[in-house]
Amino acid sequence: MIELVAGVDVGGTNTVFALIDQTGKIHAQDSFPTAAHGKFEDYVKAIGTGIFSLSSALGYEHEIKAVGIGAPSANYYSGCIENAVNLIWPGILPVVEMLSMEMGGIPVVTTNDANAAAMGEMIYGGARNMKNFVVITLGTGLGSGFVVNGEVLYGNDGFAGEYGHIIYDRHSDRECGCGRKGCLETYVSATGIKRTALEMLALSNRPSALRQILPERLTSKDIAEAAAEGDELALRCFEAAGKALGEALADLVAVTAPEAIFLFGGVANAGSLIMEPVRKHFENSLLSMWKGKVKILFSSVDEASAAILGASALAWDHLRKNKR
Amino acid sequence: MIELVAGVDVGGTNTVFALIDQTGKIHAQDSFPTAAHGKFEDYVKAIGTGIFSLSSALGYEHEIKAVGIGAPSANYYSGCIENAVNLIWPGILPVVEMLSMEMGGIPVVTTNDANAAAMGEMIYGGARNMKNFVVITLGTGLGSGFVVNGEVLYGNDGFAGEYGHIIYDRHSDRECGCGRKGCLETYVSATGIKRTALEMLALSNRPSALRQILPERLTSKDIAEAAAEGDELALRCFEAAGKALGEALADLVAVTAPEAIFLFGGVANAGSLIMEPVRKHFENSLLSMWKGKVKILFSSVDEASAAILGASALAWDHLRKNKR
Repeated sequence: MIELVAGVDVGGTNTVFALIDQTGKIHAQDSFPTAAHGKFEDYVKAIGTGIFSLSSALGYEHEIKAVGIGAPSANYYSGCIENAVNLIWPGILPVVEMLSMEMGGIPVVTTNDANAAAMGEMIYGGARNMKNFVVITLGTGLGSGFVVNGEVLYGNDGFAGEYGHIIYDRHSDRECGCGRKGCLETYVSATGIKRTALEMLALSNRPSALRQILPERLTSKDIAEAAAEGDELALRCFEAAGKALGEALADLVAVTAPEAIFLFGGVANAGSLIMEPVRKHFENSLLSMWKGKVKILFSSVDEASAAILGASALAWDHLRKNKR
Repeated sequence: MIELVAGVDVGGTNTVFALIDQTGKIHAQDSFPTAAHGKFEDYVKAIGTGIFSLSSALGYEHEIKAVGIGAPSANYYSGCIENAVNLIWPGILPVVEMLSMEMGGIPVVTTNDANAAAMGEMIYGGARNMKNFVVITLGTGLGSGFVVNGEVLYGNDGFAGEYGHIIYDRHSDRECGCGRKGCLETYVSATGIKRTALEMLALSNRPSALRQILPERLTSKDIAEAAAEGDELALRCFEAAGKALGEALADLVAVTAPEAIFLFGGVANAGSLIMEPVRKHFENSLLSMWKGKVKILFSSVDEASAAILGASALAWDHLRKNKR
């Protein structure tokens, strides 16, 4: 009999769920639009029903041992999604308790997307033999998941690891969605790189392909494509983002002294365009005792499945801990 | 029979050692000048002999269960003092192995001063019921000890927790002893506050008692005394230090989300002069989810004995872990 867990990715747009084994192989997968259910109770029921359907259709004997949920603003300790800004249900949502009931009492665990990504890296990815590492997710914003002594760092309240919201530049005028100014994610994220591009277009007269794109439509992907073709202004945007991230990661090393830092997500797809300046500024900025000792790597978890893999890794980790 | 541990504080000037019980009571204590022994072997022997002498002179039955050593640049994992800049012996010093042999094989553990302070706070001080907290030591420099899930955060190499060396201001010209510019400890430490005072004396024409003190002799204690008497320029120095520390601690919360942050050491003795601006700027700078939720407190471990208490706490923690 094969042992499986269910991984659930609660996204603002879609909810994806899958049955996954200990090697990270996906045995079955499905999804539905997150906003299809106005009541959160119905939404959780739909997840439970969806998992049972996948299980019924599976042509071989198996057992679903646990469920892991990656969700915005999810609190590992309380098992609740707490005031998520990009979901339609306000307030405190006891997703673990509700889904566990729906699933006949099997263990259910939850955490936020970046912590799930860190779990995925530890169980299936490049951090398999590491006890101290960090995953930085570079998407619309900048998320982070810290692993310390082989455990995700949740902190006192379950919400540790918001590295996108350390202040990168205390003299900055860049407004962040959090209401403050100068947060790292206003420099290093898809939207941060776009801001840098708009700033550079204003400051320089240099010709650039980016001048042909409506500011509202400009994306970090456009900037990466222009940079790949040698557009100097676009290249400078990645140099600036790499500088900010490299410097900020050097500060991070002074706190948790990880073995490696993994970059993951849309912006990381720019490859050496982002990695080269990150590594250069990181090494230049490190305290001398850490120079040459801390690796910066791309995540080795398949991006398309990373969210459900991370969620399932959380479930495997939970089972592993409770066997001890 | 009373169970005791020995706490050893390896200082640049003096080495202090004591026999301490589980409540933090010091049963016997002695010290000698650290540089009295040119060879490190002889130095370690002198510690061993010193502990045995204390033990022999004690008028009641007892057992010494372990030794904890707080030392500069001490690595918990390797048990070595590694390239300490303020000790007379260069290179890698296997202090744990050598002292354990000297002491007949009982467990010996070591870590740096700030981590030992965190241990002291956890075993004897205000963090007794906390699993996630930070101790910031404000002396000549700024040290930090992070506790996560009830364990000191050592990181991959044993040297995590150098919060004095995060970059507070990326546009700063303040040179740090580490060779970089803008480190937090160039703003928030006895020497940092002195720098701020010298800067303010240069920038302002305002009369101040600090103008009557030779720059070379000026100390943070002078500045605290002037501030206590209402000297406006001196008050501004503490406001500036409190702003820098409050802002930097808000960033720290975004990483480890502690329950409390303890301030300890010489500068902390300035009391409300430093605490008020720290708390004000900390609260103003926190991400909204943490506002009002993270305490900033003074250490409740007696400062005069904190170093040996912290070292002994490390020994008790080691014994506790190995009982499990």
